[in-house]
Amino acid sequence: MAYDVVVIGSGPGGYVAAIRAAQLGFKTAVIEKESLGGVCLNWGCIPTKALLKSATVMEYIKHAQDFGIQAQGQHDFGAVVKRSRGVADKMSKGVQFLMRKNKIDVVMGFGKVVAKGKVEVTAADGSKQTVEGKHIILATGGRARQLPTMPIDGQKIIGYREAMVLPTQPKSMIVVGSGAIGVEFSYFYNSMGTKVTIVEFMPRIVPVEDEDISKELEKSFKKQGIEIMTNAEVTKVDTSGAGVKATVKTAQGEVVLEADVLLSAVGVQSNLEGIGLEELGIKFEKGKIIVDKFYQTNLPGVYAIGDAVPGQALAHVASKEAIICVENIGYNEKKYNHQPEALDYGNVPGCTYCSPEIASVGMSEKQARDLGYEIKVGKFPLSASGKASAAGHTEGFVKVIFDAKYGEWLGTHMIGYNVTEMIAESVVARKLETTYHEVLNAIHPHPTISESIKDAIEVAYGEAIHL
Amino acid sequence: MAYDVVVIGSGPGGYVAAIRAAQLGFKTAVIEKESLGGVCLNWGCIPTKALLKSATVMEYIKHAQDFGIQAQGQHDFGAVVKRSRGVADKMSKGVQFLMRKNKIDVVMGFGKVVAKGKVEVTAADGSKQTVEGKHIILATGGRARQLPTMPIDGQKIIGYREAMVLPTQPKSMIVVGSGAIGVEFSYFYNSMGTKVTIVEFMPRIVPVEDEDISKELEKSFKKQGIEIMTNAEVTKVDTSGAGVKATVKTAQGEVVLEADVLLSAVGVQSNLEGIGLEELGIKFEKGKIIVDKFYQTNLPGVYAIGDAVPGQALAHVASKEAIICVENIGYNEKKYNHQPEALDYGNVPGCTYCSPEIASVGMSEKQARDLGYEIKVGKFPLSASGKASAAGHTEGFVKVIFDAKYGEWLGTHMIGYNVTEMIAESVVARKLETTYHEVLNAIHPHPTISESIKDAIEVAYGEAIHL
Repeated sequence: MAYDVVVIGSGPGGYVAAIRAAQLGFKTAVIEKESLGGVCLNWGCIPTKALLKSATVMEYIKHAQDFGIQAQGQHDFGAVVKRSRGVADKMSKGVQFLMRKNKIDVVMGFGKVVAKGKVEVTAADGSKQTVEGKHIILATGGRARQLPTMPIDGQKIIGYREAMVLPTQPKSMIVVGSGAIGVEFSYFYNSMGTKVTIVEFMPRIVPVEDEDISKELEKSFKKQGIEIMTNAEVTKVDTSGAGVKATVKTAQGEVVLEADVLLSAVGVQSNLEGIGLEELGIKFEKGKIIVDKFYQTNLPGVYAIGDAVPGQALAHVASKEAIICVENIGYNEKKYNHQPEALDYGNVPGCTYCSPEIASVGMSEKQARDLGYEIKVGKFPLSASGKASAAGHTEGFVKVIFDAKYGEWLGTHMIGYNVTEMIAESVVARKLETTYHEVLNAIHPHPTISESIKDAIEVAYGEAIHL
Repeated sequence: MAYDVVVIGSGPGGYVAAIRAAQLGFKTAVIEKESLGGVCLNWGCIPTKALLKSATVMEYIKHAQDFGIQAQGQHDFGAVVKRSRGVADKMSKGVQFLMRKNKIDVVMGFGKVVAKGKVEVTAADGSKQTVEGKHIILATGGRARQLPTMPIDGQKIIGYREAMVLPTQPKSMIVVGSGAIGVEFSYFYNSMGTKVTIVEFMPRIVPVEDEDISKELEKSFKKQGIEIMTNAEVTKVDTSGAGVKATVKTAQGEVVLEADVLLSAVGVQSNLEGIGLEELGIKFEKGKIIVDKFYQTNLPGVYAIGDAVPGQALAHVASKEAIICVENIGYNEKKYNHQPEALDYGNVPGCTYCSPEIASVGMSEKQARDLGYEIKVGKFPLSASGKASAAGHTEGFVKVIFDAKYGEWLGTHMIGYNVTEMIAESVVARKLETTYHEVLNAIHPHPTISESIKDAIEVAYGEAIHL
């Protein structure tokens, strides 16, 4: 079959690219080796949020008395996992529906670019077919990065996939790495009653966040009963016994941790193998395909988006790259009127859905200072928020960073209840090149936790009413 | 004592005015007849949110099985109310602290302007003192409006105050009026097991909202077991028996409803009595004090803000009016450099905290059409949101309205889980005069419900990916 656009991979980069291409009038196919929706829908964003919600409900039951309620509850680990799979399946079926609706052909199998305009697809049974496309978009995504000291065996050393569908709940777990995946599973399993120990190589957990965020999360996690080791490196994992024994090198010397399982959450690695890069001379470097601002590789007609290219390995980044890539193809092919705007990677929000939640965008305080900005920083504790008190979630804060000279909003860093739903305001305001003044003149509704953004800005400018 | 600024009333208008005045270097006093923080903190926004949170926790316990959890729970009505009072008290003490910190004198008693620059304060014991202030700000707030057919007796016919602290939970309740107060209590009591019937005079509940919102809430409330009568008027209430008997006139004729109590939630009325308006010739009309855009009344040196003046009777409006009023006094007195910007009452968000929550800003679809706009409308159902599915809250939608000609964002209307924390984005974007294009180019994080705002905009412009 010959298409205008062929997309390899149907994650939040690939399926969005395919839909936008179909909308612009391109005859489109998407190639998927496993499940429509990719990791995000099937093994990432969505099913983890379902698990986390069960943890949240469990927490409410445990603390029901704080709300004037007597309650007992017991989770059924299998049922919690089953619900999560159900949510993921529903979403994957949703993508199926969207493919049909947009008349996009779905070809199941592993795609490899074999020549300009030609993709060879190998199905699960080994049969091969060739799909032709004038424009080929590589949206092959990523997978768990593995360290040689802890190869994932799926039983005792697990990755995020296995962590989502363990047949029985482990009594204890070592989580190596404290990025979003590590801390989300730490929160989930700890809430469910598993004894969790986090081992982080860097000096602080969630190391990509503002330092204050790391401190606050560490404080909260310790209060919840999670053990945390920072500046700590797993040098050896022994899986010969009943559970795992991990040797951890710390500043204080070596310790050996024992647990039922070890979750390796040390990052994501792009899927670049076997898709034809080397054979066709498509340039890549440090595990990422090199593209221009419209996601064109060095080989005309071949594009790459999502985790396969540099930039934050986040679903919303992949989706936006998909739209920009396809609209630019549309523009070049005279199917779309505007050349799209290039993505500003400095204005991409990041969210972590443990409890307390984390949401941030822009520069951390340290980044801003290191770049030589003179800054105004405002921090507003949620303990001073009426809505947070009413909701029974007073931990955390909103921190904002402004350029002192021109009033530019450089960064927002939030930790606490519901903050992931509050970060879009900062992104949009920064996109619109706001100054602090305009945000203060936009009324935040009372009582909400979102008001705390306004309060934090007031703090930065010495006009704090509520502190 | 002689002050630069004297504020009568310490609600979210009054206490904010006092703090901002103190910040600008004014010697400031605030006069309060009852509790610091006014109705909002003590009998409104805050304690109701605490009650509603208990209802939410109760709902999670009832539906725990949906999340893979076996649970039983029983609320203790007294403990639920006690928690709510505790949250309110904490907030009121917070205002006390802020008064001390900002060196604002608090004078307890009922304030009345008796002459230019003079306020007579009558304490609870009847003793009187005079407080002098160059600038006097009337922030006297409001109270439950009463209809002659149902005078609040505090026992069987109650207002929002009594509804917050009933000594025992009624088995059944008639709620007259379905604005924010009416529907919040309806949700709360229904969740707690009280049989609730809403009687609304207008053709739909939450009549100030977009029509689609009313329909969705009615559908949800009926599913939850709340009875709803619209186009219905209570013509008589008989409290002579054990409970109440309310005669309700409907299009189908008269019906008599029986219940333990009747909650009158038919609006708010300003507190304008006895504060000196008539004596000093301060103009008021239709129950509201007439002011200019900086809240100056016709009597120089006397200002009015909050529920006492026209404009939405909302806490966040009162607080913003307070800041504008005081900054303008500061500007005139050369204590502040900028003349403040007048408030845009067309860009004030409104939130209702029943479940599903409601949040909106700007014009409804009908208002936009009536004003002659050619519009683009986008509606995105939360059933298509991955995060909403993961959270187990798929009811509701986000609806956006744009001007077709210039792309101006005319209105946002949301109903569903957590939407009250999502509306600030629209307010800020509208303040910054955004077009749809810029919002679509600002990345919304995945997976959040806030993404549905982006999705709705895509729907409006025929670029929907997820529908």
